Amino acid sequence: MTATESAKPTTAQTNGQTNGQSNGTHQIGRSVTRIDALEKVTGRAQYAADLFLPGMCYGVFKRSPHAHARIVSIDTSEAEKMPGVVAVITAMTLSKDMASVVEEEMHATRKVVSLFPNIGEKVKYEGAKVAAVAAVSREIAFEASERIKVEYEVLPPVTDVREAIKEGASQINEDSQPADALPDGPFAGHPIYNVAGQNHRAEGDVEAGFKAADRIFEDTYVIPRAHQTYIEPQTTVADCAPDGKVNVWTSTQGHFATRSNLANSLRIPASRINVHGMTIGGGFGAKFGGIVDTYCVLLAMKAHRPVKIVYTRAEEFLDARPAPGAVITVKTGVKNDGTIVARQAWALWDTGSGSGGCYATSRVKGVYKIEHFKLDAYDVNTNKPAPGAYRAPGAPQATFAGEAQINRIAHELRIDPVELRLRNMREGEQIAFKETLSAVAERAGWAQRTKGAHEGWGVAVGEWTNGAGPAGALVSVHEDGKARVFYGLMDITGTDTAMAQIAAEVLGIKYEDVTVSRGDTDSAPFGTASGGSVVTFSYGNAVKRAAEDARDRILELAAEHLEASVEDLEVSDGKVTVKGNPEASVTLAQLGQMSLRSRNGPIVGRGSFSSEPSATTIAAQIARVKLDPETGQLRLLGAYGSLDVGKSINPMACEGQMEGGLVQGFSWGMMEQMQWREDGRNWNPGLLDYRVPTSLDFPDLETVMVEQPTKNGPFGVKGIGEPPIAPGIAVISSAIADATGVWINEAPFTPERVLAAIKSKAS
Amino acid sequence: MTATESAKPTTAQTNGQTNGQSNGTHQIGRSVTRIDALEKVTGRAQYAADLFLPGMCYGVFKRSPHAHARIVSIDTSEAEKMPGVVAVITAMTLSKDMASVVEEEMHATRKVVSLFPNIGEKVKYEGAKVAAVAAVSREIAFEASERIKVEYEVLPPVTDVREAIKEGASQINEDSQPADALPDGPFAGHPIYNVAGQNHRAEGDVEAGFKAADRIFEDTYVIPRAHQTYIEPQTTVADCAPDGKVNVWTSTQGHFATRSNLANSLRIPASRINVHGMTIGGGFGAKFGGIVDTYCVLLAMKAHRPVKIVYTRAEEFLDARPAPGAVITVKTGVKNDGTIVARQAWALWDTGSGSGGCYATSRVKGVYKIEHFKLDAYDVNTNKPAPGAYRAPGAPQATFAGEAQINRIAHELRIDPVELRLRNMREGEQIAFKETLSAVAERAGWAQRTKGAHEGWGVAVGEWTNGAGPAGALVSVHEDGKARVFYGLMDITGTDTAMAQIAAEVLGIKYEDVTVSRGDTDSAPFGTASGGSVVTFSYGNAVKRAAEDARDRILELAAEHLEASVEDLEVSDGKVTVKGNPEASVTLAQLGQMSLRSRNGPIVGRGSFSSEPSATTIAAQIARVKLDPETGQLRLLGAYGSLDVGKSINPMACEGQMEGGLVQGFSWGMMEQMQWREDGRNWNPGLLDYRVPTSLDFPDLETVMVEQPTKNGPFGVKGIGEPPIAPGIAVISSAIADATGVWINEAPFTPERVLAAIKSKAS
Repeated sequence: MTATESAKPTTAQTNGQTNGQSNGTHQIGRSVTRIDALEKVTGRAQYAADLFLPGMCYGVFKRSPHAHARIVSIDTSEAEKMPGVVAVITAMTLSKDMASVVEEEMHATRKVVSLFPNIGEKVKYEGAKVAAVAAVSREIAFEASERIKVEYEVLPPVTDVREAIKEGASQINEDSQPADALPDGPFAGHPIYNVAGQNHRAEGDVEAGFKAADRIFEDTYVIPRAHQTYIEPQTTVADCAPDGKVNVWTSTQGHFATRSNLANSLRIPASRINVHGMTIGGGFGAKFGGIVDTYCVLLAMKAHRPVKIVYTRAEEFLDARPAPGAVITVKTGVKNDGTIVARQAWALWDTGSGSGGCYATSRVKGVYKIEHFKLDAYDVNTNKPAPGAYRAPGAPQATFAGEAQINRIAHELRIDPVELRLRNMREGEQIAFKETLSAVAERAGWAQRTKGAHEGWGVAVGEWTNGAGPAGALVSVHEDGKARVFYGLMDITGTDTAMAQIAAEVLGIKYEDVTVSRGDTDSAPFGTASGGSVVTFSYGNAVKRAAEDARDRILELAAEHLEASVEDLEVSDGKVTVKGNPEASVTLAQLGQMSLRSRNGPIVGRGSFSSEPSATTIAAQIARVKLDPETGQLRLLGAYGSLDVGKSINPMACEGQMEGGLVQGFSWGMMEQMQWREDGRNWNPGLLDYRVPTSLDFPDLETVMVEQPTKNGPFGVKGIGEPPIAPGIAVISSAIADATGVWINEAPFTPERVLAAIKSKAS
Repeated sequence: MTATESAKPTTAQTNGQTNGQSNGTHQIGRSVTRIDALEKVTGRAQYAADLFLPGMCYGVFKRSPHAHARIVSIDTSEAEKMPGVVAVITAMTLSKDMASVVEEEMHATRKVVSLFPNIGEKVKYEGAKVAAVAAVSREIAFEASERIKVEYEVLPPVTDVREAIKEGASQINEDSQPADALPDGPFAGHPIYNVAGQNHRAEGDVEAGFKAADRIFEDTYVIPRAHQTYIEPQTTVADCAPDGKVNVWTSTQGHFATRSNLANSLRIPASRINVHGMTIGGGFGAKFGGIVDTYCVLLAMKAHRPVKIVYTRAEEFLDARPAPGAVITVKTGVKNDGTIVARQAWALWDTGSGSGGCYATSRVKGVYKIEHFKLDAYDVNTNKPAPGAYRAPGAPQATFAGEAQINRIAHELRIDPVELRLRNMREGEQIAFKETLSAVAERAGWAQRTKGAHEGWGVAVGEWTNGAGPAGALVSVHEDGKARVFYGLMDITGTDTAMAQIAAEVLGIKYEDVTVSRGDTDSAPFGTASGGSVVTFSYGNAVKRAAEDARDRILELAAEHLEASVEDLEVSDGKVTVKGNPEASVTLAQLGQMSLRSRNGPIVGRGSFSSEPSATTIAAQIARVKLDPETGQLRLLGAYGSLDVGKSINPMACEGQMEGGLVQGFSWGMMEQMQWREDGRNWNPGLLDYRVPTSLDFPDLETVMVEQPTKNGPFGVKGIGEPPIAPGIAVISSAIADATGVWINEAPFTPERVLAAIKSKAS
């Protein structure tokens, strides 16, 4: 098996390729039915909420109605008296509970207690958890939570990062110190308040770069916070055994990560925790634990009964970990021929009561050769929930700023925006930026594009380099000649299917003859969480190595049986054959049986992987839009995406990633935004008011894969889950500008904003 | 770690040794609390019957009330009409169902159909399955089963093997041919009817041997069929997914064996079956599948819903797989000094409607040097259920014959029965027959024994050589420095605990820091079933190798970190230290964390084992009894057991095996017997009438371990689950003879039989 030698576009089409039986040749690069398809469409897949344990109770939270307030008192006595209530916890009860448990470890106690605000401490966003209740029914638990009396001293909230950084704004984290004033940029000259993190970077000399430029552009882009809107809400069931063993069944992207989080936040030894990763109904970065699981375990410990917590949709919007918003100013100096010589960015990331976002500002630089680059970025506290990861964290926001401005520059320089990019893109081994952009341009008919009235075309690219993480896998071959893959992979995107294909490819058997099992954290070898596009790259290597290890053992057994040397054997079609002598063969089933009687026992291949660098990939996308001049409504006439996948294991799944990411990126530009009122309350905590697209909002998507292998990926695989979300906002803004002549720099581009743009141009 | 160098008796005492925390030294050879103790005593262990699946139905059987009859007709129409009934299956419906499923595979169809008798075919024992019903409640299912109308042509039954072999007896299996007449022995001169299997063996020349003997003894021993009386009845839950995947949760000694059985009997590819081995409530050889699981899967397939079958206690007695009975004649020639020169045996094994038993006749030879040995043994069909394995299958029966006669010979020759054995026992490497017998004699004070009125002492030995089977195991070390063992071992005797001790020993960590997980057949590496005393020997090797493999990786990581060579490192107390420099150390937790970032990834040790020979062990036992001359009631005044364990991993568990086996063997001699009336109906199908001992029937047991390591066992371990059941019947019969002067040769030695013996002597 060799990886594709050079980058070449491939159409990801599933018609006529799916549902086909294996043909005995390659098992990778073939669109196969997902291994979990039937259990999902028939409703048999077990999600965390499907689990009912004997004696199980239900946990709910008491939440702050205020975005910013100090706790004066909490009275749980009425709640505790209610029949059916089995546990009530607050910071105070935890102090008591924990004191008796780990009296000697005050640090541990403080850490656990800090899961809730104590008297005198603050709630920092609407919906912040103040207490938790478990009861024999959800209804009783809710009623009990309402009987908890909390007295607040309400404080003025701040919701806009541009206000929050000013002197005199409410200080959200009281021990945070203002950051030093910057010498340049949009918020220069004053200390910056409510700073929760910062990131600074300089390459070359931007001042010199700007001086060498023919023209300089400076724009400010505003991106709202967006919710990951996974269909399955945050859900956990926890149970604590009398011996102290904690079992947790949860919707998570990484059950080992969940175990670590629980161990750290509750000060329980990791070996006393067993996390069962259930089938997940979407995560997109928001399911690494901490939102409900920690509390669920505490309630189960206190109640001495299993406890289930399932978030409501409103809770998802009030108190989960949505993506941060951002206000990003970008200044770019270019030559008249379009060469980018210098770029500088200043960014305020809206990280609510938490932090994490500003590190992504460097993506403003994009995939271009830019000699001089500088950024100053800050995480800024506001009275909103803390941020979490959302598919390519920070990339859609920073890419909007970087790529939208590239389009404006192209427009101003009267250079085709595809051509401008091709002139500036980096080149190198293992990357295919230009080929990927050219592929989507060709697919969309960019060079020949035409447009009618109120129509426009937009283009942008987004980049990502997949991460890598530790992964272990086993590939066993049993006495029926079929293979079983066992590991600790949480499948969020169809990766179990890809892993089965990889194992099948190596073992020369059909994909359908591979069974894939996920172990809980007590049984599976350690595996990294599914995020950062690490999975197919990292687990793919582990599974490939495990299958190769099993194949070595198969060949060893076959060599003995066939009285041939290993070098003279080949494995395919479920059997080992002496090369050039098809009569001399032995099936994997026979070898599986022989292994049981052999000195070295059953065939168990093992593969392990830690971390090796991958190569950068890009997603390139094009949209064709039509605007309604009366209403400002945007309609997508066409949507095209390309992506360098390195090597496609399952083209249908790659297509799914390209489509899903494109839709999420476009819709952040078209409609998605979390909104808060001036009093800090969430305006649209539900899927009626927080708009996500339906199939009616999108035309048929057209996607094209490019395969430029990376040398450390299994068969050349690059991680591809994230890049397709990155370009979307910029694509849409550019298409609107192409249609209207107006550059709208604040997302999403709602009918109101589009209409205002149309009118501003008309006036 | 070296194995014990020579055989030496060790007292297995748990007082003061259990519940102790690890002391940082050896983890094996230490009595530790069972790893599953808390979950069992708190009722949290999940047995198959504890499982409730959504939509689950209940399966029950329609059974024959006749021991021998031909099916004339079966009418299921009334049952099928009952509301709540979801599936009714008979041989006829299976013909139809299967015809549509595997039309081309008539052989497969026939095999599946043969699970029930068809019209014109026979039922061969009371309680034989005629049909199965699944319904939404157990009550409806039972009622429906009663509405199935079956017309029978009743045939004469035969229940005594001595009658069954005669010409003219009912022929139970109609295509069986009579065996040729034997030239000698108790049933010589006539063809042998109803033969279901035979075994013949000859060593030396018995005729010559008998001629060389000074005295010849010939006795016939009768042993009834006994039930394994596991507390948890046969139980299975099955569920068939729309994609054909069959999930089975079952009480089994081997879930891989269950998978194979299901695959073979239902013609389903093994890879489509996933068997989950639940916590088992006793097996003793009777839980390898086939009794309920096959039917449960068929019902679930037909009902398209999960189905649970839980046997009632009566069903256990009517239609499970109890031990075979036997009638064994033994002829032994000895010199006047006690030297055994020749031995011959003729055996009829009562194998009901099945076969399997006669192969065990060779155990009549025992552990003695006997130059001339011959046996002729037959499995004989009777109208009773087929036989299954029961702890050391066939050994208690054959050992009773062999050892009881040894005692009678000793009595007649006026040689001490311990001395007679020591004179004749085989010697050799890795065995410790004499040491083990001497150990129990010393413990019991045999040489100084005295007896009051109606008191007697008995002694016997039983031998066993553990089997070996394929086993795979993984030992992972996680970022907390704790180890996880993962495999496909079904723990029926506390072996998970021993495996944790082995892994801890190798890794230099505490037993308490090892977590053990069992995988289902889809996820675990192949593992042999738990039977034949294979487990600690086979899995012990696999786990030891896996832990050593993990340790190699730990040392590799530590060597890099400590800049030392692997040879200079030692692992203990949860850390790796440079020898002679205790300051230079790194903890396993640190190494576990490092591994995740290392090139070779997480620490996952793998061990595999197939089959290597072990060495024979013996259990030696002594009883001191007192008989009530008025009632014939036997009371045990003392019970002593010794056993060569090779190497004790967990002394408390070894003691448990010695005690449990002794109790089962003694009670087969004292009270256990399945009884059938002349019409073939079971007389005592329940635990009220089938007597098993309570704690009031036994004194405190005294046990002593001998440790003569076997070279292929991990640390020298021998398999020890089975041998302690073997001597029991002979021990009791000899003690009674010592008290009464009468040799009772038919077990069990009920008060009636003992009283008759006392009276016969008095008269």
